[in-house]
Amino acid sequence: MRAYDVIKKKRDGFELSFEELNFIVKGAVSGEIKDYQISAFLMAVYFNGMTERETLDFTLAIANSGEKFIAKGITGVKADKHSTGGVGDKTSLIISPVLASLGVFAIKMSGRGLGHTGGTVDKLESIKGYKVELSTDEFLKIAKKCGVSIIGQTGDLAPADKIFYSLRDVTATIDSIPLIASSIMGKKLTADDDVIVLDVKTGNGAFMKDLSSAEDLAKVMVNIGKGAGKKITALITDMNEPLGNYVGNALEIKEVLDVLAGKVKNDLYDVSKMLTAEILYLSGYGDREFCKALFDKEIENGKALCKFKEFVAYQGGDLTEILSGNYCASKSFDVLASESGFLIELNAEKVGISSLLLGAGRNKKEDKIDYLAGIILHKKVGDKVEKGEKLATLYSSNESLFSSAIKEFLQAVKILGDKLQIKSKIIKTIE
Amino acid sequence: MRAYDVIKKKRDGFELSFEELNFIVKGAVSGEIKDYQISAFLMAVYFNGMTERETLDFTLAIANSGEKFIAKGITGVKADKHSTGGVGDKTSLIISPVLASLGVFAIKMSGRGLGHTGGTVDKLESIKGYKVELSTDEFLKIAKKCGVSIIGQTGDLAPADKIFYSLRDVTATIDSIPLIASSIMGKKLTADDDVIVLDVKTGNGAFMKDLSSAEDLAKVMVNIGKGAGKKITALITDMNEPLGNYVGNALEIKEVLDVLAGKVKNDLYDVSKMLTAEILYLSGYGDREFCKALFDKEIENGKALCKFKEFVAYQGGDLTEILSGNYCASKSFDVLASESGFLIELNAEKVGISSLLLGAGRNKKEDKIDYLAGIILHKKVGDKVEKGEKLATLYSSNESLFSSAIKEFLQAVKILGDKLQIKSKIIKTIE
Repeated sequence: MRAYDVIKKKRDGFELSFEELNFIVKGAVSGEIKDYQISAFLMAVYFNGMTERETLDFTLAIANSGEKFIAKGITGVKADKHSTGGVGDKTSLIISPVLASLGVFAIKMSGRGLGHTGGTVDKLESIKGYKVELSTDEFLKIAKKCGVSIIGQTGDLAPADKIFYSLRDVTATIDSIPLIASSIMGKKLTADDDVIVLDVKTGNGAFMKDLSSAEDLAKVMVNIGKGAGKKITALITDMNEPLGNYVGNALEIKEVLDVLAGKVKNDLYDVSKMLTAEILYLSGYGDREFCKALFDKEIENGKALCKFKEFVAYQGGDLTEILSGNYCASKSFDVLASESGFLIELNAEKVGISSLLLGAGRNKKEDKIDYLAGIILHKKVGDKVEKGEKLATLYSSNESLFSSAIKEFLQAVKILGDKLQIKSKIIKTIE
Repeated sequence: MRAYDVIKKKRDGFELSFEELNFIVKGAVSGEIKDYQISAFLMAVYFNGMTERETLDFTLAIANSGEKFIAKGITGVKADKHSTGGVGDKTSLIISPVLASLGVFAIKMSGRGLGHTGGTVDKLESIKGYKVELSTDEFLKIAKKCGVSIIGQTGDLAPADKIFYSLRDVTATIDSIPLIASSIMGKKLTADDDVIVLDVKTGNGAFMKDLSSAEDLAKVMVNIGKGAGKKITALITDMNEPLGNYVGNALEIKEVLDVLAGKVKNDLYDVSKMLTAEILYLSGYGDREFCKALFDKEIENGKALCKFKEFVAYQGGDLTEILSGNYCASKSFDVLASESGFLIELNAEKVGISSLLLGAGRNKKEDKIDYLAGIILHKKVGDKVEKGEKLATLYSSNESLFSSAIKEFLQAVKILGDKLQIKSKIIKTIE
């Protein structure tokens, strides 16, 4: 088999066999297929797409291109929620302890943030002492004891995806549904989950800006999951404004603690509940309504918060500082409403960039994070605001970062006289 | 400017500016734009094409990407015929001396053969002592004195084309009209010609297998030439059977001598005449009919042959051996007709491959050539044949090569009972 012929076949719109797709994936990893051939292949896929079968086969080849995680010794249902990334999205940290306290294993390898979106691993690292790097043995030991363990991505998982992604990033072949789906699911299928619930974000703060492409992506990923023998659903959720009221790292841990303590019942609570309920439903805990009630109950009876604290302790984390109020930088700036009316826009991408500019995120992989930087949103879309009222408070350890962050934040905000009809954050369920 | 943005713009179907195209060409040569980005760009061009303006700008950028040849001190009209490559195509060696004897300068850098097609430089090297590598000064000196000089491609001409071509060759982006046209014309425009006549071959032995794509290519190349200020025409000529009766290297020199001597008036004579007349017409020698007559006259009066011998002598070549009959290998094999009827097919590509298998060509750039190997075609398409009559004689210095060459040759031949209407080799003129 020659790479040339496979590229040509895809270029000419024919369907590739598993053998041909696997040849490309294996050749990319071994280096036998050169990067200039891979990028031509990716561009041909950009133009001609992939059939459902091709996308599944390509994804499986990617998933099998390196090591795979095996949850050795874990006998119960293993579930994972995966989000396509957003601003203020800390649902993993709420869902996982709720699941674990109900007997579903939440064993998770999570990513770091880049650009305007945050990463679960960064948020956890804002907890003093929390270890994101554990050996597989330690990881499994905690998971077995406590039902939940979250570490950074480790090992040589789906190395083909790293090669494809880095080439797509510089050759304008990122926005192709089969390539996005196979990248996300190729990594996801290296994990050993029985149930997967995808949170596909749509809106200005999401990778998929419009609903129809988010739906397309969700459908393709659900098909891949089913083809790989998983129980899987995708929820399409809104990311036009940030999720919850806290954006940052320690700030988001604080909000997680508040939600788990039952103190806060905002959009973050709702989305977390829906995602958790979907996992419980797929795990056989009952119908969706019953599963939603299970979520409420685990919050109300304090078990979820207790489980979160237990899990953090197992991973070496110490929540004392955050619980004692030390979750935001000492320097702050209040953004006030310039007029009265209703908040009709709070652009998630711009809030994310503002938070990044405050030091809470990374522009490049190597950038260091200010864990206490971030934003508290006092108002969300639909809220009534009075001129001069606090819209948000920005935090940073570095005062010189405020001016550009404030400027960006102000562009995120739109206030109008008319009240807006608030829609649910859960837009659609794809199963 | 970023390569990413230029790739994306082309990918999304927008027209690129000269600056953007030049950025890609310069970046390719400097190495600042990586080959994986170039190949993604080429694939995007494959899918979305280029406008007339883009193709011209891209070609000019390629032509200007390295050194350019300047015919310093040559004051007359400089003309070049360029063929897209075929089997038995030795027209350059007939046209050039005719032009020179009429006062048009034919100063040519020619290529070597690869695969089933031959190269002018290889044919000339079959002449004992002929030097294909000359300094620019020597090259120009001969041109000035004699009106014709032919050497191999030299210097750092159109280095961008070499990069693009080698990537296209392995990424299935060869067959794109704007990329083919810009490659051919990008090289051509590094030369210092006033008049260009393109011989665009079509048929099984040609790069362009079908007439409509040959026409498309011809039109695009003619537009580029005009845009670059050249007088230019393209003739579309048939390459379903080899041109002339001799295929090989010394064998083709022998046929050139025969045509120039007026001994042979075959399809090779006709095509050479039409191409020469077109150049003379564009050079202001009179109307096309008059220019055709000029060709006949230069053959009849012996001046063209005389000019050829003079030019070969200037370049150090000695024709004695070929003139004395030593132009084919000692080992030969006659292919006989297996039935009576009319020869209705003599597949040029297969005859070319047969000649290659006899040792007359190259599979890889590094392969050595047997200058005395090749084929004499005793019959051409339309000829009546009797069972047992000689169709062709195959020559090689290496007897072990015959069996596969004969097998290939036999596949080229088709004999039927009905006489075929013979069409002109000149299919169309694109001006």
